[in-house]
Amino acid sequence: MVMSFQKEVFTEISPADFFYRNRDLAGFTNPSRAVYATVRELLENSLDACELHRIPPEIYVRLSQESSVNENINIYRIRVMDNGSGVPQEHIPSAFGQILYGSKYMLKQVRGTFGLGGKMAILYGQITTHSPAYITSSTGTSSIYEFDVMIDIQKNRPIILRMDKERNKDKWHGTIIEFTFEGDYAKAMPKVLEYVKQTAMVTPYANLTFVDPKGRLYRFERITDKMPLPPKEILPHPCGVDVEMIQRIVNVTKCRDMVCFMTNHFHRVGKGIAQRFLEYTGIEASRDPKTLGPEETVKLAQAMKNFPEFLPPDASCLSPLGKELLEAGIRKELNAEFVAVEQRKPSAYSGHPFVVEVGIAYGGDVLNKPGISLYRFANRIPLLYDESSDVAWKVANTRVNWRYYKVTQDMPMGLIVHICSTKIPYKTVGKEFVSDRPEVEREILNGVRDVSRRLSLFLSKKISIEREKKRLDIFSRYLPKIAQFSKELAGKDEEPSIEPLLRSLTLYGAEEE
Amino acid sequence: MVMSFQKEVFTEISPADFFYRNRDLAGFTNPSRAVYATVRELLENSLDACELHRIPPEIYVRLSQESSVNENINIYRIRVMDNGSGVPQEHIPSAFGQILYGSKYMLKQVRGTFGLGGKMAILYGQITTHSPAYITSSTGTSSIYEFDVMIDIQKNRPIILRMDKERNKDKWHGTIIEFTFEGDYAKAMPKVLEYVKQTAMVTPYANLTFVDPKGRLYRFERITDKMPLPPKEILPHPCGVDVEMIQRIVNVTKCRDMVCFMTNHFHRVGKGIAQRFLEYTGIEASRDPKTLGPEETVKLAQAMKNFPEFLPPDASCLSPLGKELLEAGIRKELNAEFVAVEQRKPSAYSGHPFVVEVGIAYGGDVLNKPGISLYRFANRIPLLYDESSDVAWKVANTRVNWRYYKVTQDMPMGLIVHICSTKIPYKTVGKEFVSDRPEVEREILNGVRDVSRRLSLFLSKKISIEREKKRLDIFSRYLPKIAQFSKELAGKDEEPSIEPLLRSLTLYGAEEE
Repeated sequence: MVMSFQKEVFTEISPADFFYRNRDLAGFTNPSRAVYATVRELLENSLDACELHRIPPEIYVRLSQESSVNENINIYRIRVMDNGSGVPQEHIPSAFGQILYGSKYMLKQVRGTFGLGGKMAILYGQITTHSPAYITSSTGTSSIYEFDVMIDIQKNRPIILRMDKERNKDKWHGTIIEFTFEGDYAKAMPKVLEYVKQTAMVTPYANLTFVDPKGRLYRFERITDKMPLPPKEILPHPCGVDVEMIQRIVNVTKCRDMVCFMTNHFHRVGKGIAQRFLEYTGIEASRDPKTLGPEETVKLAQAMKNFPEFLPPDASCLSPLGKELLEAGIRKELNAEFVAVEQRKPSAYSGHPFVVEVGIAYGGDVLNKPGISLYRFANRIPLLYDESSDVAWKVANTRVNWRYYKVTQDMPMGLIVHICSTKIPYKTVGKEFVSDRPEVEREILNGVRDVSRRLSLFLSKKISIEREKKRLDIFSRYLPKIAQFSKELAGKDEEPSIEPLLRSLTLYGAEEE
Repeated sequence: MVMSFQKEVFTEISPADFFYRNRDLAGFTNPSRAVYATVRELLENSLDACELHRIPPEIYVRLSQESSVNENINIYRIRVMDNGSGVPQEHIPSAFGQILYGSKYMLKQVRGTFGLGGKMAILYGQITTHSPAYITSSTGTSSIYEFDVMIDIQKNRPIILRMDKERNKDKWHGTIIEFTFEGDYAKAMPKVLEYVKQTAMVTPYANLTFVDPKGRLYRFERITDKMPLPPKEILPHPCGVDVEMIQRIVNVTKCRDMVCFMTNHFHRVGKGIAQRFLEYTGIEASRDPKTLGPEETVKLAQAMKNFPEFLPPDASCLSPLGKELLEAGIRKELNAEFVAVEQRKPSAYSGHPFVVEVGIAYGGDVLNKPGISLYRFANRIPLLYDESSDVAWKVANTRVNWRYYKVTQDMPMGLIVHICSTKIPYKTVGKEFVSDRPEVEREILNGVRDVSRRLSLFLSKKISIEREKKRLDIFSRYLPKIAQFSKELAGKDEEPSIEPLLRSLTLYGAEEE
């Protein structure tokens, strides 16, 4: 049988081209989401640039309207200025004009995980307005560098249109980025403002300024100078290692035996554990790792998953907010009647350490609609979309028996869930929801129970105070009548004083609390 | 102020490395999902390789267990064999060993859209078992080619370990792929079987064989030789065009004036429309497109979004199943008492044409649990995960007033929704759910209403037949008594015959329907 086939054309596309074609995947779905994603990605990059170096963030975001495309869509100019560490001159073009290029490809807790977001925003600006991005940056050296950059999407390479150097008299460090893009701010506004507000909630040590296209200024002032410890880079935990990773380590290792190999390249593997592990695998301790054959590498990777004696990952590399900062942030933004926070002990899923922090807030003037408002955060990023796909939503809505904690459906409540990890198990590049890994789900559930128990005590107290008030109210209404009646009955001129009696009741009531 | 910054290391990673680090994004989250994703991606590639060339598919998928890692995780070998068009020799290494390389980067309705899935499966096999993929393929020429391929993940390039050539006496065409990977079939089984079954439902013209690791054989035979028309490649619709795309077209065009440019490179733009459009933009018709400046390009792109006279995209490039095939598939797999199908007229969102097909099934022995079972398909792919995030779920559960159609909660029902498009608006690379673009939602809703109306007629008839049966039942029970009573009353010897009366009632009942 001879068949004539329609000709197929095989081509290679660059990663920039891939994300250009599939920008929905990174959250750039429509003009409204584009505004949200642009503000978000740039703000997160600025926060990372400050926090990784423990610089109290001063971040200024301005969105201004340039022109109008049609009744919904406009061209906006965004300008984001931070006092972060700045980008070294030689990396500026690629850091802003090349997809999959960056400083975040290591095992460390950072907001950005895909090395994509900021550049997707620039790329989106370029494909909608055909204009370059203007970058100004300095690492605090004697010079400030300015670049006008566009992206060659088909080649995934930056195109430098201009480069200038200026004297940095004040040793300023930081980055300023500015470009135009097409968007729909009117529609995006509620989410953008909520995003900035929630970011302020988990960064109470930052000064954030946001100026919107109408010229309205939103300013969130820091209320503390304390900053969480910066995250540290860690070695990979044996549990999360695969054959490819072992091979890459073998290629670069200077170790000439397996004990050295295990202790130098893997997280929390000491000499004793390494020796017992090698016995378990049957690979000799004196073996040169470079001589491992493919089958032995596979055996090693499988044994790493099964060996029961590895220590759990150490969470010292993580940078949770801490109870004090979390509570300060919640009090500041929610202004609630009651707040309780809890930090769970570090845990791990497939070799990735994580810490869950949970807060609960009740009453006040911000939480003014009945029911639970969920505030989700991951590595200090507020997550605002696709709430019902998130593990925290699942816990709050299907795993907790709220009545047990005296929480009724009409109570205005805020539940805050923050997950820190070297690898947040996001389900999408758009970083909108966290998947329900059993370990993560369990920690959130336990955290919610911890804070709910304390809320429950508060509510009990509140209920009993109210009951007491009612009781006293009744007494103080009827006692004078009884006193008068007794006076008349006894034929006396003066009523007995009821005050000592009332006071004893109050005391009794107070003790009961 | 002098600050000493922690050193940041900037690196570039390859797209293969990106997806290796973020394999969750492509659905390879854990050993169970890995089995599902592997079967799915390879089966889809095979179906595409057949359908694009109108070859009735003969596809054989075998999963066998090689060895065991621990009590849950095993090493499996997958072998997928198809009679598709085959891959030309020179493209085999890259088509199977390089991410973002393929033949699917055009505007055409295909299952694979990201050029990722099959290669992610191979990559996952490699990082878990360190073994090559074995590829055998021929396009029906005089030779069959065999390759052993691995992926250099850091460079994103194929490594060819072996290449052989054999004589192709029978002019066989097709592809065989085989490799090992780590997985958990026991846990994945229900989803894998459901996936294969639902695939059979929308490909009633295919022979599908699946052999599972226990040696159980699942065979789905074709019930028709009719195949849907293959999709065609189309030009981009002006509505969906951005500045980057215009620039790419300008770079390759041979047109020397704008009318030629518009009519030759855009979908459904004739000379008249092109001329009116150019007047609308203020760009002269005689302009050489290569002389357009950046601002004019932006103006052109914006005008393409706003000009009201462009024709809607033509859906002839799409390949929906058609009512006949869809109904045949549903009848075959659901064996229902009642089936209705509907194909909506083509529609479009942001320049991408799409067609929605909807089916409804009631009763029978397969649908045996009360409530609506939703079967979701996109470009003939069954979607099994994250149902409640899908637009079809939203329509079925929040937009349709089922009581209006006489559907009650205890009825066993199947609702089938199939979306065909040159670009399915997936929210994730894992292709699990379709976002709720308003245009898509509207078409699904209208389709569901169409078939529900017909179900409602069927149910009315069924209800009235049942009511009639009951009525007749009562008559036939009491009429003899009345007849006997009348006989005694009239003092006659013989009862009057009730049969003519009963018959007239039946007739009346039938007319009423």
